[in-house]
Amino acid sequence: MSFINNWLRNDIQDLDAYHVPQSHGMVKLDAMESPFPLPDAMIGQYLAYLADTELNRYPTPGAHELKQTLHDLMDIPEQFDILLGNGSDELIQLLALACETGDTILSIEPSFVMYDIVAKFTRLNYKSVELDNNFEINLSSTIDTIEASNPKLIFIAYPNNPTGNAFKREHIITIIGTAKNSLVVLDEAYYAYAEDSFLTEIENFSNLVLLRTVSKIGFAGLRLGLLIGSKDTVEQLDKLRLPYNINTLTQVSANFLLQEKGEIQKNANTIKVQRSELVKSLSQIEGLLVYPSQANFVLFKAPRADKLFEDLKYNGILIKNLSSSPRLTSCLRVTVGSKEQNQQFIKAVNNFYGQQ
Amino acid sequence: MSFINNWLRNDIQDLDAYHVPQSHGMVKLDAMESPFPLPDAMIGQYLAYLADTELNRYPTPGAHELKQTLHDLMDIPEQFDILLGNGSDELIQLLALACETGDTILSIEPSFVMYDIVAKFTRLNYKSVELDNNFEINLSSTIDTIEASNPKLIFIAYPNNPTGNAFKREHIITIIGTAKNSLVVLDEAYYAYAEDSFLTEIENFSNLVLLRTVSKIGFAGLRLGLLIGSKDTVEQLDKLRLPYNINTLTQVSANFLLQEKGEIQKNANTIKVQRSELVKSLSQIEGLLVYPSQANFVLFKAPRADKLFEDLKYNGILIKNLSSSPRLTSCLRVTVGSKEQNQQFIKAVNNFYGQQ
Repeated sequence: MSFINNWLRNDIQDLDAYHVPQSHGMVKLDAMESPFPLPDAMIGQYLAYLADTELNRYPTPGAHELKQTLHDLMDIPEQFDILLGNGSDELIQLLALACETGDTILSIEPSFVMYDIVAKFTRLNYKSVELDNNFEINLSSTIDTIEASNPKLIFIAYPNNPTGNAFKREHIITIIGTAKNSLVVLDEAYYAYAEDSFLTEIENFSNLVLLRTVSKIGFAGLRLGLLIGSKDTVEQLDKLRLPYNINTLTQVSANFLLQEKGEIQKNANTIKVQRSELVKSLSQIEGLLVYPSQANFVLFKAPRADKLFEDLKYNGILIKNLSSSPRLTSCLRVTVGSKEQNQQFIKAVNNFYGQQ
Repeated sequence: MSFINNWLRNDIQDLDAYHVPQSHGMVKLDAMESPFPLPDAMIGQYLAYLADTELNRYPTPGAHELKQTLHDLMDIPEQFDILLGNGSDELIQLLALACETGDTILSIEPSFVMYDIVAKFTRLNYKSVELDNNFEINLSSTIDTIEASNPKLIFIAYPNNPTGNAFKREHIITIIGTAKNSLVVLDEAYYAYAEDSFLTEIENFSNLVLLRTVSKIGFAGLRLGLLIGSKDTVEQLDKLRLPYNINTLTQVSANFLLQEKGEIQKNANTIKVQRSELVKSLSQIEGLLVYPSQANFVLFKAPRADKLFEDLKYNGILIKNLSSSPRLTSCLRVTVGSKEQNQQFIKAVNNFYGQQ
């Protein structure tokens, strides 16, 4: 046995490394990316803007310009502050590091896997409450679990991934109001595709912060996430941020690219229209159960789901197979792509089931 | 008292946020940055290379191209593997997260402050051993402390920051050979300016890994650090890496820019020549004690150090004031800049002491 196997704690050794499937040359509908590249007209300006960056110098530590751009892009009230991370993942980990040894992180499952993974990385307890059969929050069991386990952090994805629905507003408000000792983290990664948001509730609840990201609105390659909270909350959490965590290229690029608010909103609206089309087309396929979505993906239950997934892959279309998860038997998740990609996907599903 | 003050653990609240001084328009000799910008001839090619990046897609998860470029740049034997981080800071934190609750991190002080800070962030014990008066490792007290505290991780910066010296090779070898239960992390951030390295010792000691970074060789803005270890060590530690941690811009940029091995080595050699000049000039100033350096900075003890620091700042030259640190009374640290910057600095120091 090698040194590292003796040295490293077993719960980490037992993990499989986070697996990212091969996708080269495929129609990539597995990762909630935007299908829209930068417009050609913007690329030249963008590169010219990058030409002046001093890569031999450390990044601007406070990233104030970029934060102002995000305030404008997402209509974040000026009285709230922003903490930036390399993706939401770094911020989820930062929140977990704010906890003390023995603390518990609570989430509602099925949901984003990183809440559980980060709890493990940071040596905290992890507790989950099951969603009901409609993927809605089971309020009484959630409140009971909160009271029994006194979680330091509660993660709720709104809209939820991988189910796609946005939980009932009054359920979330009840949870925030009840869990007065917990910091409630609403993960609004898919805010651009949702009908509602808890952004303004930060004013009303001092134990509430939001996470957002630019990954789902066209900029997954930037790996830029943000935490939004009251000024005093962000000031304290900022003490756990590693210095210079957001590099110069990310700061300069995001600052330039995210000023195109009109373009970003136009693309989000296109995706919402395409989502309706996709849901309609999927619902017309016999045997499929399509779940409502307020995100840029759609969850559906399909007969012979594993076979369908493999057949799509064979035909060059990559989606996400969730069917081995106990609560998501026979479920697949498809990202809303461009009109052409969605049509190609629908055609392949129809072909698989022998329909046309 | 606000929610966050009740919620957040006190040891974090008690921290001051990492302070980065204002440096706009100043001769910046405080942060071990390279003074050399990208050559004009390279900028056009670089931007053209960037034009094809798909920012709407997640980064390549394994970053294999970039890793190969780093293997070539740093002459890393193919039998060793690389783990990438957003600066060494992220890798120091990853190593700390590999530890278990109750574990101890050991370092030798004065050294890089992040070892201590990250131990706090990750709720581990931190133990330090003092260097002797020549800033050399006190081997017997170090071995005693290792045996008494059984550290899970031992961080040693080689060359050391902020003292600039490289510890005796046989001391480090003895420590690695004695601390058989510890993972020994040699932080070679300043490898490009040092006479020696422990790179090939990874073959001989299974409990040894190295940290390096591109921050000190011209690319601080990229925030790219790397851990070098045996394949099985890296494979296990990689399980603690957050998915997609290195964004697309960093991967693509670093892959292009770090292929300019000749340019990077030429710049490093220039800095080493300039370091000799700087040490010579500083040593000629009456009353200054200049410490030997194998890094791209020089530590010196100066009469009225605080006043000298402020006087330099007033004259537009920013260096690092370490004089409030108990072991570094009256010490200042200056980064080796360009010939012109160093001359400007020397002139200002001479002026301060009324010499010319």
